[in-house]
Amino acid sequence: MTDMRPSGRKLDELREISIETGVTKHAEGSCLIRCGDTHVLCTASVDERVPPFLKNSGLGWVTAEYGMLPRSTSSRMRREATAGKQGGRTVEIQRLIGRSLRAGVDRVALGERQIVVDCDVIQADGGTRCAAITGGWVALRIAINKLMQAGQIASDPLGDPVAAVSCGIFAGQAVLDLDYPEDSEAGVDGNFVMTGDRLIEVQMSAEGSTFSRDQMDQLMALAEKGVTALSAAQREAAG
Amino acid sequence: MTDMRPSGRKLDELREISIETGVTKHAEGSCLIRCGDTHVLCTASVDERVPPFLKNSGLGWVTAEYGMLPRSTSSRMRREATAGKQGGRTVEIQRLIGRSLRAGVDRVALGERQIVVDCDVIQADGGTRCAAITGGWVALRIAINKLMQAGQIASDPLGDPVAAVSCGIFAGQAVLDLDYPEDSEAGVDGNFVMTGDRLIEVQMSAEGSTFSRDQMDQLMALAEKGVTALSAAQREAAG
Amino acid sequence: MTDMRPSGRKLDELREISIETGVTKHAEGSCLIRCGDTHVLCTASVDERVPPFLKNSGLGWVTAEYGMLPRSTSSRMRREATAGKQGGRTVEIQRLIGRSLRAGVDRVALGERQIVVDCDVIQADGGTRCAAITGGWVALRIAINKLMQAGQIASDPLGDPVAAVSCGIFAGQAVLDLDYPEDSEAGVDGNFVMTGDRLIEVQMSAEGSTFSRDQMDQLMALAEKGVTALSAAQREAAG
Amino acid sequence: MTDMRPSGRKLDELREISIETGVTKHAEGSCLIRCGDTHVLCTASVDERVPPFLKNSGLGWVTAEYGMLPRSTSSRMRREATAGKQGGRTVEIQRLIGRSLRAGVDRVALGERQIVVDCDVIQADGGTRCAAITGGWVALRIAINKLMQAGQIASDPLGDPVAAVSCGIFAGQAVLDLDYPEDSEAGVDGNFVMTGDRLIEVQMSAEGSTFSRDQMDQLMALAEKGVTALSAAQREAAG
Amino acid sequence: MTDMRPSGRKLDELREISIETGVTKHAEGSCLIRCGDTHVLCTASVDERVPPFLKNSGLGWVTAEYGMLPRSTSSRMRREATAGKQGGRTVEIQRLIGRSLRAGVDRVALGERQIVVDCDVIQADGGTRCAAITGGWVALRIAINKLMQAGQIASDPLGDPVAAVSCGIFAGQAVLDLDYPEDSEAGVDGNFVMTGDRLIEVQMSAEGSTFSRDQMDQLMALAEKGVTALSAAQREAAG
Amino acid sequence: MTDMRPSGRKLDELREISIETGVTKHAEGSCLIRCGDTHVLCTASVDERVPPFLKNSGLGWVTAEYGMLPRSTSSRMRREATAGKQGGRTVEIQRLIGRSLRAGVDRVALGERQIVVDCDVIQADGGTRCAAITGGWVALRIAINKLMQAGQIASDPLGDPVAAVSCGIFAGQAVLDLDYPEDSEAGVDGNFVMTGDRLIEVQMSAEGSTFSRDQMDQLMALAEKGVTALSAAQREAAG
Repeated sequence: MTDMRPSGRKLDELREISIETGVTKHAEGSCLIRCGDTHVLCTASVDERVPPFLKNSGLGWVTAEYGMLPRSTSSRMRREATAGKQGGRTVEIQRLIGRSLRAGVDRVALGERQIVVDCDVIQADGGTRCAAITGGWVALRIAINKLMQAGQIASDPLGDPVAAVSCGIFAGQAVLDLDYPEDSEAGVDGNFVMTGDRLIEVQMSAEGSTFSRDQMDQLMALAEKGVTALSAAQREAAG
Repeated sequence: MTDMRPSGRKLDELREISIETGVTKHAEGSCLIRCGDTHVLCTASVDERVPPFLKNSGLGWVTAEYGMLPRSTSSRMRREATAGKQGGRTVEIQRLIGRSLRAGVDRVALGERQIVVDCDVIQADGGTRCAAITGGWVALRIAINKLMQAGQIASDPLGDPVAAVSCGIFAGQAVLDLDYPEDSEAGVDGNFVMTGDRLIEVQMSAEGSTFSRDQMDQLMALAEKGVTALSAAQREAAG
Repeated sequence: MTDMRPSGRKLDELREISIETGVTKHAEGSCLIRCGDTHVLCTASVDERVPPFLKNSGLGWVTAEYGMLPRSTSSRMRREATAGKQGGRTVEIQRLIGRSLRAGVDRVALGERQIVVDCDVIQADGGTRCAAITGGWVALRIAINKLMQAGQIASDPLGDPVAAVSCGIFAGQAVLDLDYPEDSEAGVDGNFVMTGDRLIEVQMSAEGSTFSRDQMDQLMALAEKGVTALSAAQREAAG
Repeated sequence: MTDMRPSGRKLDELREISIETGVTKHAEGSCLIRCGDTHVLCTASVDERVPPFLKNSGLGWVTAEYGMLPRSTSSRMRREATAGKQGGRTVEIQRLIGRSLRAGVDRVALGERQIVVDCDVIQADGGTRCAAITGGWVALRIAINKLMQAGQIASDPLGDPVAAVSCGIFAGQAVLDLDYPEDSEAGVDGNFVMTGDRLIEVQMSAEGSTFSRDQMDQLMALAEKGVTALSAAQREAAG
Repeated sequence: MTDMRPSGRKLDELREISIETGVTKHAEGSCLIRCGDTHVLCTASVDERVPPFLKNSGLGWVTAEYGMLPRSTSSRMRREATAGKQGGRTVEIQRLIGRSLRAGVDRVALGERQIVVDCDVIQADGGTRCAAITGGWVALRIAINKLMQAGQIASDPLGDPVAAVSCGIFAGQAVLDLDYPEDSEAGVDGNFVMTGDRLIEVQMSAEGSTFSRDQMDQLMALAEKGVTALSAAQREAAG
Repeated sequence: MTDMRPSGRKLDELREISIETGVTKHAEGSCLIRCGDTHVLCTASVDERVPPFLKNSGLGWVTAEYGMLPRSTSSRMRREATAGKQGGRTVEIQRLIGRSLRAGVDRVALGERQIVVDCDVIQADGGTRCAAITGGWVALRIAINKLMQAGQIASDPLGDPVAAVSCGIFAGQAVLDLDYPEDSEAGVDGNFVMTGDRLIEVQMSAEGSTFSRDQMDQLMALAEKGVTALSAAQREAAG
């Protein structure tokens, strides 16, 4: 089993993670998260206006947008602004990020304001949506810290970090934190979003294949291990 | 626990299912699937040309499109053709239907041709994407039967039926096959796509909430039960 | 002259017509109209708000939208929501349906509210716009009956049924109610919308051909005959 | 009845017509047609390539596009290029112009080439679509003359001029060639496209009203008279 | 050097200019400007509402839109309304026209209203953006005269005419007022917008080439000469 | 004059510049250019196919695209991919970048291939288009070095660096390299693109103001000084 993964990682080994905060001067919260060669710039922007459906509800909102720089990938992708619309994959991903982050927010405590989390992939090597969720939470945490320090929020609307990791069946083995060479070969993969030991979103999918209950449980167990490590990194980065 | 569901169904009880085939004269395969008050018209259209990325590959393709009639819902929705694009929810759903059906197809046996499965919701009452997958497979089965009878396909590219069902935590209880009143209240719900006892896609999601491993297992168990019944109906309908 | 039409119909013979009402549980009025193999699902949706240009005018509004399911036709058509806009033919047709239905409505009696009539073609075999008008009026009639029964409308804003039929010169003969094989061969065809013995809209058009005043009068006479029969079916269906 | 029309014209009196040819140096054929205060610039552009569906058919094609300058109207209209699409009315009109001109063309004699007729309204005062057809035919005639003089077309693909005029019921009277003040009041109006004494397209429409067979015949008779005069002007202009 | 320009003009010679005013009955100000074979129809439309960002500011606004008729050019261009958007060149040009005209307007004296200047190219032979600015100012001048005569504006918001001309390096020589044959060969060209002896906008650009400070000064000197002559024509036309 | 600029810089003082190369692993050339607080990520992507109009011409092509991350600015901007199109300012800027870089390329020596330079603004503080040109040239230089080292290009298609800087009249003084606080106040500003001592593009523009020949010359002189310093930094970075 040694050296079975292209990267030489062990089956249950995460890529090296680094989270650098304060990377842009304008955003209320920001970080550059690096999960191996996947680099995502996350910013959290506070907007004192909420979407129309929440006017005078007293409830806050957190939403997310996702993008990839044209040359974040191995061959250049067409810019979505040029194509005239966001692709289906982009829309799917940003809806997932938004739902995931909202699940970890007490919207009453947040108060009637909106925070938009932008996740822009600078360099992609698999797992960009998971990195976006994990980094997005850090940007959100920092922005909310600022609101609390300014006395605009009285009680903390955030609890345990929200973190996400992918797992998959690669060369017949369940492995943690797929990089691009693994992801493009894996017949089955999943994205797991958790906060503490609670689940927020589980998406397991087979492309041209199927999987068993037993494999599902193996991926789930790997994910729990990965999320624990990611959450520690998030706490340390957000200070 | 009696009468705890708005419909009076038992926790593990599916809605009444009917699958009427041959409902349009043009399509190679078609059915109108009714899961309670959710009615979806599914057609399978055979196209002897494949998408460009499969030219001369010898492999077939199955894809899906999804739509809702404007008044399939309780209040009229804006027509997507008027809005000028498919919404994010529509794109997400049709990608899921396509992946799910492809997972149950031997693309070598299908041969270099494409089958487009259109799923149009005539009346919605929750669970439209699951009904679309379940009914879509029946339309696909009928279209492929026709190709086999015509000698255009030698060996059957389809195996066990692909069926899907939703489950969720409603009023604190795990329940099978959510209808709209349940779906709009459930803090956690999932869609499960299976073929025989194998999994194709699992999507569990909490909106403004979280769930435990134990709840996940309960939903999974209900789904397996539901899919068994749905598959029986599919086999009977497709003849 | 016998058997001169592909369907074996006489020159002045309508296709078999059936109008099934109450086909969706959500819409205030609905029917599935079948003119031979042309099947159109029509719903009428009541909206208590009028378009901006009618605010505080005391006048009501009736408008229509039209669509075709992708496989309502012999070969699959591209979905307009995917194409990103409604085609020119669609726009022309839905404007015609809207004008036709409005001509039969007393907009003062209707009161300041809007009714949107959606006409979606489930199966096409020629004459879909005429079927949409004829069926659309039935859906409108039912929705207005409901408003009258609820006391929201005092005096009936509808008079005689609004019905439409196509006629054309096929193989040198004026024929009533063209089906697709006839329509695709006819050098001249027309759509006639009437209410009682009054005309609402007449559109006669030659593609790569011309016609005489005499032919125009023959088509007109056939149309009057057809509309009389359609109106009887409408009255019976709307109850 | 004297002075019953806002313009003081008699019931069966056309507006003054002028057709100035050769108004742009680039187009193969061009004219500026003035029907009273309605001014339309028409150009015919020859393209040696036909649309894909006619490749290697030996048949030619004539098509049309229509536009209005933003301040051709009494209050400024939004530019369609800014709005991002042609409106429904524009699409309807340009399809009508194209069909009308094609009906007067022998597509075999034209040979496998396309002529695009652009009709741009410089100043509008009612009847722009009819002026566009009438002027468009002149531009087409000139372009085809040029092709014939150059020996690229052997036998003349055009016959009698194609001309169009509107008629309507204004203040209870059938009148010829509606200007804007009449058009905006008329409950019933029609557009009549003819070539010689043959009909190409008849569109009669009631907005919020109906009309009788007898009124239809009156409008038709006025139109025939108007088209005769317009055709004389066309012949004279095209030389 | 004689006859070195395709048109036979001297190096510092403008094309013949004519400005015909009052060319459409609807617009508050209008002119047809002809700079040689470049013909642009300019209209100024007064709108008593300003854009949202100026509400209650007491300041006026002037903006511009630009378009080309499809056959204003040597080969037919695709209509931007059909293409679904304005191209990059169009957007660039209309932003330039708007900035240029605004620089010559006292927005306090104009008062809180908007004037939209539409510049539509009827026939193009190089220098359309400059002709649009020069003609656009005349249309603006006439519209403002009308507002002043009506007492809606007390003190004149316009000063010296705003005029524009292009210059370029053609066949190694600096020449004034490029026509299309020159423009398509020039490696360097510039557009100069001036009012009196003051500069508003200078754009010099090399395509696949570069230029020296000395050449820049030569072009600047030619432009000053051209603008002086254009301004005289503007004053004469606007009366 | 001391401390007259918000940043405390001297009138002719550039912001601190840093150019970090090799910042993404996928692109053939890349750099992150920082001009004070303006940070732009530039990548150069080699594509062996040229645009259709250059097929079999033997000539290469260089083009550019420009974007801003939503929170690169002081308040969050709408993502252009969501808006469905690139705005006018974006289009203007990316056309300028492309023209500027092409002017410094020998397209015969480049050979029939295309290089796309993407410039994405990570953080904006004025002068993003100039930073994009300056950084874009470095990315291009690195990509071309790689092609030369691989033997795919024989003779160097690049000469002196292409660099750009803005200047403007701020508080009555001509100043070099405007930052955002200066740019938003300046009534006149210009962008100057140069290579060595040759000019590529000069754009000077007054918004609601005008400028004299003398001021133009002052800005030009400052720009020459700035470009000299920028070019030195470009040479050092590109190695």
